[in-house]
Amino acid sequence: MADEDLAAFHNSLIVIDALQYSNWDRSLFEEWRAGGLTAVHVTITYWENARDTLTNIGRWRRHFERHGDLIMPCRRAVDIERAKTEGKTAVLLGAQNCSPIDDELALVALMRELGLAIMQLTYNNQSLIGAGCYEESDPGLSRFGKQVIREMNRVGMIVDLSHSAERTSLQAIACSERPVAITHANPADWHPARRNKSPELLTALAESGGILGFSLYPLHLKNGSDCALSEFCDMVARAADHMGIDHIGLGSDICRNWGYETLEWMRSGRWTFEPDYGEGSQAKPDWPAQPDWFESPADSPNLTRGLLQRGFSQDDVAKVMGGNWLRFFRDGLEPLR
Amino acid sequence: MADEDLAAFHNSLIVIDALQYSNWDRSLFEEWRAGGLTAVHVTITYWENARDTLTNIGRWRRHFERHGDLIMPCRRAVDIERAKTEGKTAVLLGAQNCSPIDDELALVALMRELGLAIMQLTYNNQSLIGAGCYEESDPGLSRFGKQVIREMNRVGMIVDLSHSAERTSLQAIACSERPVAITHANPADWHPARRNKSPELLTALAESGGILGFSLYPLHLKNGSDCALSEFCDMVARAADHMGIDHIGLGSDICRNWGYETLEWMRSGRWTFEPDYGEGSQAKPDWPAQPDWFESPADSPNLTRGLLQRGFSQDDVAKVMGGNWLRFFRDGLEPLR
Repeated sequence: MADEDLAAFHNSLIVIDALQYSNWDRSLFEEWRAGGLTAVHVTITYWENARDTLTNIGRWRRHFERHGDLIMPCRRAVDIERAKTEGKTAVLLGAQNCSPIDDELALVALMRELGLAIMQLTYNNQSLIGAGCYEESDPGLSRFGKQVIREMNRVGMIVDLSHSAERTSLQAIACSERPVAITHANPADWHPARRNKSPELLTALAESGGILGFSLYPLHLKNGSDCALSEFCDMVARAADHMGIDHIGLGSDICRNWGYETLEWMRSGRWTFEPDYGEGSQAKPDWPAQPDWFESPADSPNLTRGLLQRGFSQDDVAKVMGGNWLRFFRDGLEPLR
Repeated sequence: MADEDLAAFHNSLIVIDALQYSNWDRSLFEEWRAGGLTAVHVTITYWENARDTLTNIGRWRRHFERHGDLIMPCRRAVDIERAKTEGKTAVLLGAQNCSPIDDELALVALMRELGLAIMQLTYNNQSLIGAGCYEESDPGLSRFGKQVIREMNRVGMIVDLSHSAERTSLQAIACSERPVAITHANPADWHPARRNKSPELLTALAESGGILGFSLYPLHLKNGSDCALSEFCDMVARAADHMGIDHIGLGSDICRNWGYETLEWMRSGRWTFEPDYGEGSQAKPDWPAQPDWFESPADSPNLTRGLLQRGFSQDDVAKVMGGNWLRFFRDGLEPLR
């Protein structure tokens, strides 16, 4: 496909990135537009409690007010379609932890009303709901956890298992009345990492109608920062064979313009006085370099190109680049009853 | 008017009580229905901060869920009309203090979205916004206070001055782009009390399009618990002459089924270790007895009867019993821009 045909094809797509966490400012919203992003799921919480989360929601209200020519809030899937028409990027607010609801079931509905569309049940650690992927032991879902999933199902808040441990994740899939998401992770049988997911879990996810967003965080990639676009697209093809073409999408996990102190906050929160290296290590604690074909969301057309080159049909590329997420959100963001 | 005609007339009215604070349970919602109340403004906050207020909002969600045959949430005035049609009572959530927004301007919009329809700028004390009616000195509106009023105007949250001091109140009326409310107080020239309002303030309120809800709390009434219905209705007639028939309504301030510890919480909150007696006194610290013609909201038809007997026309009774509040809410609860 010629460059201009590729650009036209990419620009015709609904492109959805199901996880980013950046030091947001106008230049980053301009990157989204440059990359043709129709919708982005942004993290507003790692360890923040209910009160802190209100402040973070308030910050996004200011972004929407000040940069309304570039971005708009996404509360329902129809907002994504509207963003496409208006040439803007729709933003879904999400939490990487259940900390926004403290220990209180009623806060699920209130946070959903304020715009929190997606919530992980756990970050890396044990939460009030279940175990994170760095815990040694995984007790599965707590009593509170089962109530929270039912309430999330009811109000149309999407369950995200990206940082959850295996048993907790399998129980959540079984417990949830609605399909769930793993917004940002890769198959562990392609690249073993604590954050990547087992074949069994991905099978259960797909069979229940769920969806996996492929991560572009180097520590989730084979060969890390040196992972080639073709290798990444091979992984997508393998996952499509395993899970089905309708159950995969993007969730880049890209983090723009942060210093090391933010990485420390993400990893250590308020729960430890010792350094925690997450997917990194004492030898390489800092942010890893992005692959040169995805240095920022502005490079998203490279993914479209890579998938076409790997032999995906245009229809299938459209699904992976955002069509699947759109379909998933169309149901998942609506209240049940 | 014969008893059955009176009952039919009362039942035809939109009846709105612009302030109650009770130990809510089903029996009290049944009292509302017995009294023909179409809408009630209920207090959910005296001293509670943002986080506590979320819990209190959550509690009301449970009431709406469990007693949906009797009550429904009121977010806009149209909900009051719907409640009338469906034979239910619409509930407006309100705060008697600005504590639900902590020190954060962005929380005005978030609380409004969660259903907080009305907010006092101050309770009895100095707040971050202005002075309460028991302070010795009244500096007027703070810098934050002016921002909060502008934001309340924008999002359609009603400014309530019931417990504010004089200068703060006058400045708020001048500062607000929209008419404001004094949901529960009486004219001080009828019965002098710290919580009742000066003629100057009531003039300014009415001239700006605002509205006063008459209190039935005995310490706001001439002769206290012994105040006669005719005396109360005389006061209404005087206020109608002073302020105009379109600027008055009801705000009973009735508090049902509470013990003394709740009165202590309302008066002393977390701000003092010493007893504070509010409108009461060391000699009579406890809840005063209600007048026998308004022992509970189920007695609301007595007010309709009293006003008719005092010589108000049916149209004017309809305004005082709820029509004026409905008109006020029809504009005031809508966002401005």
